[in-house]
Amino acid sequence: MLAKSLYAAVDLGSNSFRLEIGQWDAGRLRKVEYLKETVRQGSGLDADRNLSEDAMQRGWDCLARFGERLAGFRPSQVRAVATQTLREARNRDVFLIEAKKILGFPIEVIAGREEARLIYLGVSHLLPQSDERRLVVDIGGRSTEMILGQHWQAQTLESYRVGSVAWSMKYFPNGQWTAAAFRAAEIAAQAVLDESLPRYPRNGWDKAYGSSGTIGAVADVLMAAGWPAGMITRQGLDWLLEKLLKAQRPEQLKLEGIREDRRPVIGGGLAVLRAVFDLLQIEEMQAAQGALRHGALFDLIDRESPDADVRTKMIGWLTQRFGVDAVQAERVSRTAKALLAPMLGQAHGERHLRKLHWAAQLHEVGMRISHSDYHKHGAYILENTDLPGFTIDELHRLGLLVLGHRGKLKKLDSTLEDPLFVLQLMALRLAVIFCHARRDPDIADVQIELDSKRRTVRLALTNQWAQLWPQSAHLLKEEVLAWQKTNWKLMLA
Amino acid sequence: MLAKSLYAAVDLGSNSFRLEIGQWDAGRLRKVEYLKETVRQGSGLDADRNLSEDAMQRGWDCLARFGERLAGFRPSQVRAVATQTLREARNRDVFLIEAKKILGFPIEVIAGREEARLIYLGVSHLLPQSDERRLVVDIGGRSTEMILGQHWQAQTLESYRVGSVAWSMKYFPNGQWTAAAFRAAEIAAQAVLDESLPRYPRNGWDKAYGSSGTIGAVADVLMAAGWPAGMITRQGLDWLLEKLLKAQRPEQLKLEGIREDRRPVIGGGLAVLRAVFDLLQIEEMQAAQGALRHGALFDLIDRESPDADVRTKMIGWLTQRFGVDAVQAERVSRTAKALLAPMLGQAHGERHLRKLHWAAQLHEVGMRISHSDYHKHGAYILENTDLPGFTIDELHRLGLLVLGHRGKLKKLDSTLEDPLFVLQLMALRLAVIFCHARRDPDIADVQIELDSKRRTVRLALTNQWAQLWPQSAHLLKEEVLAWQKTNWKLMLA
Repeated sequence: MLAKSLYAAVDLGSNSFRLEIGQWDAGRLRKVEYLKETVRQGSGLDADRNLSEDAMQRGWDCLARFGERLAGFRPSQVRAVATQTLREARNRDVFLIEAKKILGFPIEVIAGREEARLIYLGVSHLLPQSDERRLVVDIGGRSTEMILGQHWQAQTLESYRVGSVAWSMKYFPNGQWTAAAFRAAEIAAQAVLDESLPRYPRNGWDKAYGSSGTIGAVADVLMAAGWPAGMITRQGLDWLLEKLLKAQRPEQLKLEGIREDRRPVIGGGLAVLRAVFDLLQIEEMQAAQGALRHGALFDLIDRESPDADVRTKMIGWLTQRFGVDAVQAERVSRTAKALLAPMLGQAHGERHLRKLHWAAQLHEVGMRISHSDYHKHGAYILENTDLPGFTIDELHRLGLLVLGHRGKLKKLDSTLEDPLFVLQLMALRLAVIFCHARRDPDIADVQIELDSKRRTVRLALTNQWAQLWPQSAHLLKEEVLAWQKTNWKLMLA
Repeated sequence: MLAKSLYAAVDLGSNSFRLEIGQWDAGRLRKVEYLKETVRQGSGLDADRNLSEDAMQRGWDCLARFGERLAGFRPSQVRAVATQTLREARNRDVFLIEAKKILGFPIEVIAGREEARLIYLGVSHLLPQSDERRLVVDIGGRSTEMILGQHWQAQTLESYRVGSVAWSMKYFPNGQWTAAAFRAAEIAAQAVLDESLPRYPRNGWDKAYGSSGTIGAVADVLMAAGWPAGMITRQGLDWLLEKLLKAQRPEQLKLEGIREDRRPVIGGGLAVLRAVFDLLQIEEMQAAQGALRHGALFDLIDRESPDADVRTKMIGWLTQRFGVDAVQAERVSRTAKALLAPMLGQAHGERHLRKLHWAAQLHEVGMRISHSDYHKHGAYILENTDLPGFTIDELHRLGLLVLGHRGKLKKLDSTLEDPLFVLQLMALRLAVIFCHARRDPDIADVQIELDSKRRTVRLALTNQWAQLWPQSAHLLKEEVLAWQKTNWKLMLA
């Protein structure tokens, strides 16, 4: 058995796949191992945004090696995240189903803003404590993240579809570095990033940091040429551009400090980096140690304690943003948890109650769009929002709870194969019924009992109760009918 | 030619179709004609929510008679609105396409909250001026509207799926009026209406009014039995219930003041009305003269002046609700209108500019859901919100402008047959490009020209301009490419 304090993060990036293993020790994360392979999946996307066979195979081969290293880790110790290339790939499921088997752990495709949040988390944790307001930029293979934050807290975060691999393919298609092509590439990058300007004003940060890929490579090259370690300046960028223009093509570039695998994409990366410098009026940028994979590790550690779970905070933010009736949400949450708790075993109890709590907080989130069919609008919001802290799968599952919290159950057919989902859903639906008049329900004497063999939930109500609350009793009878169309049963006794 | 001051409203209700013609004269609406036919389409919905052949034919026959009366009216003088039955009917288009031909005017299926707004508008305009805070209830065939308002302004409004036709079919299916069936019907109605309670508190209104159908009929019966004219009290409702229970069935009911066509649905209507009295703690309710059709007339009159157009106000409300960046929205609107105006002829110019203004105000409304694909989220919101003042078709068209304001144009294929839509869309897309950096654009010297025969728009930019604004020039070149895939052309000169 591995030490409990070991954590591993896998970053399936558009240019490289990375594995970082760390040990949590007296409040600090100690590096145990770091592996990186240049898989360059991002260049394997064809015009229809399908990942080629080759690109998939390169990924699987790499994950097989990572998986070997991760043997013996428990699922709660590992987080594997995939970014822009797999966000975009239409056939990502073909790759992912096999990839999960090979790696031996779930792989989450995370949204752009979640990626930005994790990058900031990683960068800020590995910088000295300070009150400075930080700008963090990460130019990846197919996306670029920009974050403003202070301490360990990201305040403004966004992800844009520009990157070193994508820009190299589009603007230097035959590997020809010309001044005109550079100019076009920079303008195109600025056109994408331009709209960010008001959100990242020059007086909004004290110091600029760059994370990972392109920025690390540029800093290495500049250091080899005599610039101060880790520091990127405008002069440095101009000097590097000149070097590239002189070389004309990647294979003719003679430059100390550049790794072979960076050579084909340094042109696109440099164009994007120059556009960022221009746009945000950056004079110098410090290459940071921390990156996405470190953020994923710190996030794993945070999740161990409910209070630090960023997801709970994000749910609160979302409900505010959509003007949810907080009193009713809290009432339904309390009621739903009181119904679910006696049906759950000890194992994972807290985790499932926490997720039910989130669903209850959110069940009316669609009302801002329209009262009619608000459960559908709520599910739409959860399917489409990129809520930092959550994976796309988690949001999908939350969305299904919101979608199913009222009305017919037919729409959830396949999901009703999962008993834990069914119990969460039933608890939520019953809670919504008990709280339907938007006042605290009278459920102190209501008994709930699960017979999991017979897939049956029994709700014991006294006659007196039914007389006292005729509308609730009426709705409960309709609820019994709703479940009769599924392979589960709700019974009133 | 008819007098310009004549207006007509057609109300295609679930129980009856109505035609009201009024003349606007010195700030007052004078009644010219009122026709009502009991079509009872609401009982013609089958289990799959399809309208039966018979129910359609009854509707068409009635509209043919109304259409004859409306000969000579101009489109701006007529508003025909359809409510719950046609909201629900899956095959409504089969009915509507023919119905519009027969009537000779467009028919709008309006959302529940729009129905509520028009009811309040009609009721409040026909009541004496007063500062009292009003509760207005309208129990229709398949929906019930409840509104709180003061003067001519509705403040809280909602539509619920309970009604006299629907409740009669569900709870008195064989025309059997029993005490148990009434109890079940009242409880079921309360269970639907219950959630409204916190929004319609007893201290939120001074006086209760009831409009149209069920409430008018009940008031007539009570008056015939000696109650004060137009006044419905709890005692009156108890007395009426007793009458129905004694009669046991509609055809045995002996009651003065009841019309034959009301007899089959009075049971369901009474159950819903009693539920409303109980729930909202109403002691007495005054039957009002005004109704949906009057609201539709007053709304027609309001639309003649841009300032009174409730739609502009509602757009403002929606953008606030979704936290739209108002400065950018206004900037895009100004720019888009400046581009569209020279391409439009005089006819309808103001109307099309107003709609473009709304689309510009809303183009970023989806950002609250997510930054990525926000144009799709915006379209989703417009497809699903029930924005008072708008028809479902209007919101759909606005949604298409929002959906199409960036990205590929393929998704709009069939809509691009309509030249006015194309010009609105092109103006909006160009404005978004000119304003992409979220600062006021430099377009004083930009010339735009329409060659409608060749379906071509020419945009004249100087070289100097393109050098000054390279990103905008880059985006405009991409825009030219986007239009090449359609049957329209954008050219830069």
